[in-house]
Amino acid sequence: MRPLSSITLKSIVLIGAGNVATHLGLSLQKAGFEMAAVCSRTSTHGQQLATLLNSNAVDSLKAVPLNAGLYIIAVADSAIESVSAELPEVEGLVVHTSGIAPLSVLHKHKRSGVLYPLQSINKQVPTNFEKVPILVESTKTRDLEILEFVANELKATPFRITSEQKKMVHLAAVFANNFTNHLYGVAYQLLQSQGISFDLLLPLIAETARKVQTEIPQTVQTGPAMRNDIETIQAHLELLQRYPQYRQLYDLFSQSIRNTNRASTSEN
Amino acid sequence: MRPLSSITLKSIVLIGAGNVATHLGLSLQKAGFEMAAVCSRTSTHGQQLATLLNSNAVDSLKAVPLNAGLYIIAVADSAIESVSAELPEVEGLVVHTSGIAPLSVLHKHKRSGVLYPLQSINKQVPTNFEKVPILVESTKTRDLEILEFVANELKATPFRITSEQKKMVHLAAVFANNFTNHLYGVAYQLLQSQGISFDLLLPLIAETARKVQTEIPQTVQTGPAMRNDIETIQAHLELLQRYPQYRQLYDLFSQSIRNTNRASTSEN
Repeated sequence: MRPLSSITLKSIVLIGAGNVATHLGLSLQKAGFEMAAVCSRTSTHGQQLATLLNSNAVDSLKAVPLNAGLYIIAVADSAIESVSAELPEVEGLVVHTSGIAPLSVLHKHKRSGVLYPLQSINKQVPTNFEKVPILVESTKTRDLEILEFVANELKATPFRITSEQKKMVHLAAVFANNFTNHLYGVAYQLLQSQGISFDLLLPLIAETARKVQTEIPQTVQTGPAMRNDIETIQAHLELLQRYPQYRQLYDLFSQSIRNTNRASTSEN
Repeated sequence: MRPLSSITLKSIVLIGAGNVATHLGLSLQKAGFEMAAVCSRTSTHGQQLATLLNSNAVDSLKAVPLNAGLYIIAVADSAIESVSAELPEVEGLVVHTSGIAPLSVLHKHKRSGVLYPLQSINKQVPTNFEKVPILVESTKTRDLEILEFVANELKATPFRITSEQKKMVHLAAVFANNFTNHLYGVAYQLLQSQGISFDLLLPLIAETARKVQTEIPQTVQTGPAMRNDIETIQAHLELLQRYPQYRQLYDLFSQSIRNTNRASTSEN
């Protein structure tokens, strides 16, 4: 790899003004990048973000500066292809930030790539990219190096990946993040039904996430399903009678935990 | 509440030699309690634990010292009642450590209680009770104070609760801990199928658990189901074709997230 210092990135055009565009834009600006323009069809959002980033708002893809070094398309997955098609041909590198869209949706552009931060981004919660894995993809080594440079400047951890791998990472992240958060929500609701504060569970939630930082999840699995404790499972299913969907989840988890345990036991 | 200093606890008898008995016993001893005896039917386990705790092993409930201040029954849920029945009548406080068994299974004893640490306890992973909520229950205020004293000595956080509430906390903990850990395991397996290290997901897992320390889970819910992104959901279900049980989980989560979101939106 060439030394990072040999990489210069003139300026960045941000396309989109949603959560990802906002948090990424703010972090890029903080890291010292010049934000040449923010392009958004909803001009109020675009204007607001441009002001925050000390940049210019444009409301048409035809109007973006043509001499930027990097064009980041941070729009809804379903809109990436049409945005890419409308964006004029440029010398700079054109990337999207989607976990599911392949690199190939940017086929119009000579230099294309993916810059996918593996972090859940909320409007309400400030995003810090420090140590966040950023998955990078491009067909050109030099462009990969540019994306790695950008990730490093954000103090994130760049990680080279193919579109196929990225799809699976995205799916795994849905299980580990979105579904996990929904389980937290179920627990919140169950406690609320008995007038108990969710705070009671916070140390356990923290500890469960902490354990897998060093242990393989399957090896630290506990609970009634793991020890095949039918009586407790029955008692829990009864408690869930008012919540048919959570009851189904409970049932399916119990089966899945038992099957996984059986499979790994028979391997040993 | 009387000052804690007025509480003296002569000594503790530990019944059981499994994970909970081991980790609780070690922490109690470290906190300065005298462990009068360890009672276990499997004499090797009992002997090993007694040696660790600088205590005596007995292999029959008839042989436990009768003058201890606290008797902790830390055995499988299904065995608590018969252990309680076999234990001679004692002056001390008799408690169990189960999240699901009610206080009433200890009906034989004049002074009974529950001491339920809300933490997942693994053989492999050392347990630190510091700041762990310990749910305590007893019909007598003085006995509640003793259990709170013990929890405080472990640097844990005591929390008074009824048997009804405890059952719901235990169920909520299964969702937030056991099921969450299984989701981590699913993610591990999916990444492994593409030769990708689980390490890639660790910052996201940590961040997801960190967010709900201050935010209500439902308000920070993200992902394809939350934004009703049918295309991504379809793509994910296709990726899961080799894993029918995970596919069912994915489907049920997507429905449950959408329903919860709909319910909370219509409330607003």
